[in-house]
Amino acid sequence: MKTRDRILQGSLELFNTQGERAVTTNHLAAHLSISPGNLYYHFDNKKAIIRELYDAHQQQMMALLKIPEGRPFTITDKAEMMEKLVQELWSHQFLYRDLEHMLVEDPELASQHRLSFKIYLDYALKIHQALADAGLQETTEAQRRDLSYNAWIIVTNWITFIRCNVLPDTEQTLSPALIKRGVYQVLIIEQAFMTPAAVKEMSLLAQTYYTDIDALLLRDPTTTDSLICA
Amino acid sequence: MKTRDRILQGSLELFNTQGERAVTTNHLAAHLSISPGNLYYHFDNKKAIIRELYDAHQQQMMALLKIPEGRPFTITDKAEMMEKLVQELWSHQFLYRDLEHMLVEDPELASQHRLSFKIYLDYALKIHQALADAGLQETTEAQRRDLSYNAWIIVTNWITFIRCNVLPDTEQTLSPALIKRGVYQVLIIEQAFMTPAAVKEMSLLAQTYYTDIDALLLRDPTTTDSLICA
Repeated sequence: MKTRDRILQGSLELFNTQGERAVTTNHLAAHLSISPGNLYYHFDNKKAIIRELYDAHQQQMMALLKIPEGRPFTITDKAEMMEKLVQELWSHQFLYRDLEHMLVEDPELASQHRLSFKIYLDYALKIHQALADAGLQETTEAQRRDLSYNAWIIVTNWITFIRCNVLPDTEQTLSPALIKRGVYQVLIIEQAFMTPAAVKEMSLLAQTYYTDIDALLLRDPTTTDSLICA
Repeated sequence: MKTRDRILQGSLELFNTQGERAVTTNHLAAHLSISPGNLYYHFDNKKAIIRELYDAHQQQMMALLKIPEGRPFTITDKAEMMEKLVQELWSHQFLYRDLEHMLVEDPELASQHRLSFKIYLDYALKIHQALADAGLQETTEAQRRDLSYNAWIIVTNWITFIRCNVLPDTEQTLSPALIKRGVYQVLIIEQAFMTPAAVKEMSLLAQTYYTDIDALLLRDPTTTDSLICA
């Protein structure tokens, strides 16, 4: 593998596992067993690496949000698209941990991201339209937007939600089943807007993305009182 | 005001506006026109300040999630509770921007947060139960949990969502109307689980929390093609 590609791959790995904040270019060079000088030969700074990883992510996002042509859109299409989406968000999870910081630090990335979001939203609206055209969903334009905003917030924050609130330790990684549960969380919202004919199929399909997280949380918060009175 | 309280108030302000990551204790001392030594007399480090701000936030959260006693719970109660919740999340927004980092850095805070989340979830389930008891909602225990997870993700990430995706510039602050729209985003999800008698009231109430964000996003993404082919 070319050094440039090794730097990108190693950065993505370290950013994802340790958070972009905790990874310096020196840290990165050491991880790849190359000199900082060699790293700077390929990338001016960490910002340049982030931007290139963002680009790759954006390409993937746009590719996977494309509606299959020449046939009616199905609920399975929708669910499989969501599954690819949560996988892609998992593979570039560092971008969504403190995106605001990266956008403040890099105005060019900020412009690119705001435009990307508009494009993703446009795709999301087209997907809802395709479901409506196939007789599977009944929504107004405003409802499609509301659903799309909620879906975006849930899928882009799902991993952080699990790590901060559900896993007993932030260092733990998510199982594939826990990642897929993010799809379920969106499908159960959208289920309410399906036509009577499509509700059952959606509900059954949603269940295939379900994995229990309640068990991790069901311990009785016996120390509630001490916290309230602290 | 006592120096200790001034430090807490100034930290909250700087953390919220600039992000905790960008604010050092030296930065903070300069902002308050006190010496770093004076700051360290009151707090061992930034972590200690964060922990105290977290405590105050937790007390507020637990107070506002209490169900009024001695009368049936109403949809207005629910909405007003959500409104206080988004205001409280706004006032301590820095905690939710990169919570994962703060939890990794401070295992004691991590334990406290995981317990807090369980308590908040427990309150959320009780609120859903109170709506059911009042004949306003029909949900299973599993649905109440699913709704609570989604609501938590949406309200705790609403501010960052608006800043990163909707406002033209990350530096811009959110209007009170934009903050309140977070309530609307949750109510429209929960509306689907209300009893027929309660749906209309919920829908009308939700509208009072609505403010248009679409207009900020409706510009045609004309550069889509150039991005796709980049």
